[in-house]
Amino acid sequence: MEDVQQQQVTEREQALKTRMQKIKHKIAIISGKGGVGKSLVTVNLATAFTMQNPALSIGVLDADIHGPSIPKMLGMKGHRLQAGPPGIFPAQSPQGLKVVSMDFLLPSDEYPVIWRGPLKMSAIRQFLSDIVWGDLEYLFIDLPPGTGDEPLTVIQLLPEIDGVIIVTMPTEVSQNVVKKAITFARQVGAPILGVIENMSGFICPACGTEHAIFGKGGGKRIAGDMHVPLLGTIPIDPRISEVSDRGTPFINKHHETAAASAFMGIVKRLQLTLQNQSADAG
Amino acid sequence: MEDVQQQQVTEREQALKTRMQKIKHKIAIISGKGGVGKSLVTVNLATAFTMQNPALSIGVLDADIHGPSIPKMLGMKGHRLQAGPPGIFPAQSPQGLKVVSMDFLLPSDEYPVIWRGPLKMSAIRQFLSDIVWGDLEYLFIDLPPGTGDEPLTVIQLLPEIDGVIIVTMPTEVSQNVVKKAITFARQVGAPILGVIENMSGFICPACGTEHAIFGKGGGKRIAGDMHVPLLGTIPIDPRISEVSDRGTPFINKHHETAAASAFMGIVKRLQLTLQNQSADAG
Repeated sequence: MEDVQQQQVTEREQALKTRMQKIKHKIAIISGKGGVGKSLVTVNLATAFTMQNPALSIGVLDADIHGPSIPKMLGMKGHRLQAGPPGIFPAQSPQGLKVVSMDFLLPSDEYPVIWRGPLKMSAIRQFLSDIVWGDLEYLFIDLPPGTGDEPLTVIQLLPEIDGVIIVTMPTEVSQNVVKKAITFARQVGAPILGVIENMSGFICPACGTEHAIFGKGGGKRIAGDMHVPLLGTIPIDPRISEVSDRGTPFINKHHETAAASAFMGIVKRLQLTLQNQSADAG
Repeated sequence: MEDVQQQQVTEREQALKTRMQKIKHKIAIISGKGGVGKSLVTVNLATAFTMQNPALSIGVLDADIHGPSIPKMLGMKGHRLQAGPPGIFPAQSPQGLKVVSMDFLLPSDEYPVIWRGPLKMSAIRQFLSDIVWGDLEYLFIDLPPGTGDEPLTVIQLLPEIDGVIIVTMPTEVSQNVVKKAITFARQVGAPILGVIENMSGFICPACGTEHAIFGKGGGKRIAGDMHVPLLGTIPIDPRISEVSDRGTPFINKHHETAAASAFMGIVKRLQLTLQNQSADAG
C-alpha cells in the first residue's frame, strides 16, 4: 500500500519535472497586499514580450484561485480548457498567449471557489504538471496576495524559478506589507528580479496638474530599504482600467501613453536582468 | 486518549462561546479582490461608531494574517498584546478601540507570516476565543481577500454573525471577483448587510474636473445584479491615503470632505439595517 503511494508521488513529481523542463524562464508576480496591480503587470509583461517577438511561445498561469482576473483582462471570458490524449491544453489569448486560469473551469462569474489551502495547493500543482504547456520561452505566474499557500506552493514546486517580481503601491500601508513579500522571497530562496511601483501619481487630463493620489516614491523607498532593484514606476491612467475591463492589454492599445512607455522601460530592465542571470549561470 | 481530545475540543468550543456571547454585534468586512479598501472601511466604521457614542465598547479584529494593516491605519505601530490571568488583552487605539492584529505579534514590518491554511485557522480561532474582548457593542472583523481559509473560518466559528459588508471598486475586473464574495456569503449562510463602492471617481483639486479613474457605478450595478443593498460610494481623495499612512482615520481628521460625508451616510444606512434586523429578530 505504501509502495503504491510512494510510486504515485514519484510519478507525479516526474510529470511536473518533464513539463517544467520545457519552459525556459519562469517568473512569478507577487505582492504582500492585494489590488496593487499584479494581474495588470502580468498581462502587460506577457504582452510586451510577445509584441517584441511574436515567434516566442509565452504562457500565463493565473494562480489566483479565488479571484482570477487574467481572462477578463486578456479578453478571454467564456474560454474553456480543452483536453486531449496528452493532457489539458492552455487556452489561446487573442495576443497568442497560452493561458490557464481557474476562471476557465467555473460555471459563472458569480461562482466562488470556497477552498481551503490543501485543495488550492493541489489545483496549482495540477496547473503546472497536468497542463500541456509545451515548449515555452516564458511562463508568467500571477499569484494571489499574501505569503500563504499559493505562493509557497509555487516556489516549492519550482525550485528552478528565475525569480519573483514584486508589485507595490506608493502608500506606506502597502509598503509595510510588501516588505513582507520581499522577506518571504528571501526566506524561501527565490531570486528577486525587482520591484514595480504601480498607481504612482495621477496627471489630471483636464489641467495637467499632478496629484499623488496614493502618495509617491514608495517603490523607490522599498527598493532602497530592502536592497532590491526598482524596475520602474507606472503612473495612474484612467484608460488602464478602461481597457483592462474591455480585455485589451494597455500597452497594446495605448502604446503612446506615459504609462505604456514606463511599462516598456520596465520590460527592458527585466530583460537585462534575465540576460545577466543567464550569463552568470552559464 | 480519544476522550481527552474530545474534552479539549468541547472546552475550546465552550471558551469561544463564552467570549462571543458578550459581543452584541459582529460584522465582517469582506471582498473578493484585495486592495479595494476593506481595512479603510473597517477602521472608519469602527471610528464612526465610537465618535457617535464614545461610551460604547468597540472591537476591531484584523484577521488578515499575511498583510495586517489595521495597526498602521490606527496609529498603533509597535503596540503589543498584554497577557494577564484571564487571557490576552486587546491593544487600545488612540480612539479607544480594542484592537487585535497579527502585527502586534511580529518582530518587525519585514517579517512575513509564511503559514498555510490550518495554522491561519488556528490563529483566527485563538483571536476569537483566547482574547479577553470583554463586553463589546460591536466587533468589526477585517478579512483578507478571497473566499478561502480565513473568511470560511470566521463564518464557521461565528454562526450568530450579524452579517458581512462587501467592499468593491468600480472596475469591472473587481466586480467579477466581488460577485463571488456575495455568492460565498450566501452559500455559507451569512447575511449580507450591503455593498460599499470605494475609489468612486476623483475630483481634481486644481480644476474641479471629475475623473472616473477606475470607472464608475460598479457598486450600484453589482447591488442591482445580485439583489443586495448598496450602502454607499466613497470618492477618491488623496488625503485618505495620506492620513491612513499617518495613522488617523480620515473621518476623524477630514470630517468636512465629500469622502467623509459619503462615509457617514454609509454608517447611517448600516445602523438602520442593524436596527431593522434586531427588530425582526425580537
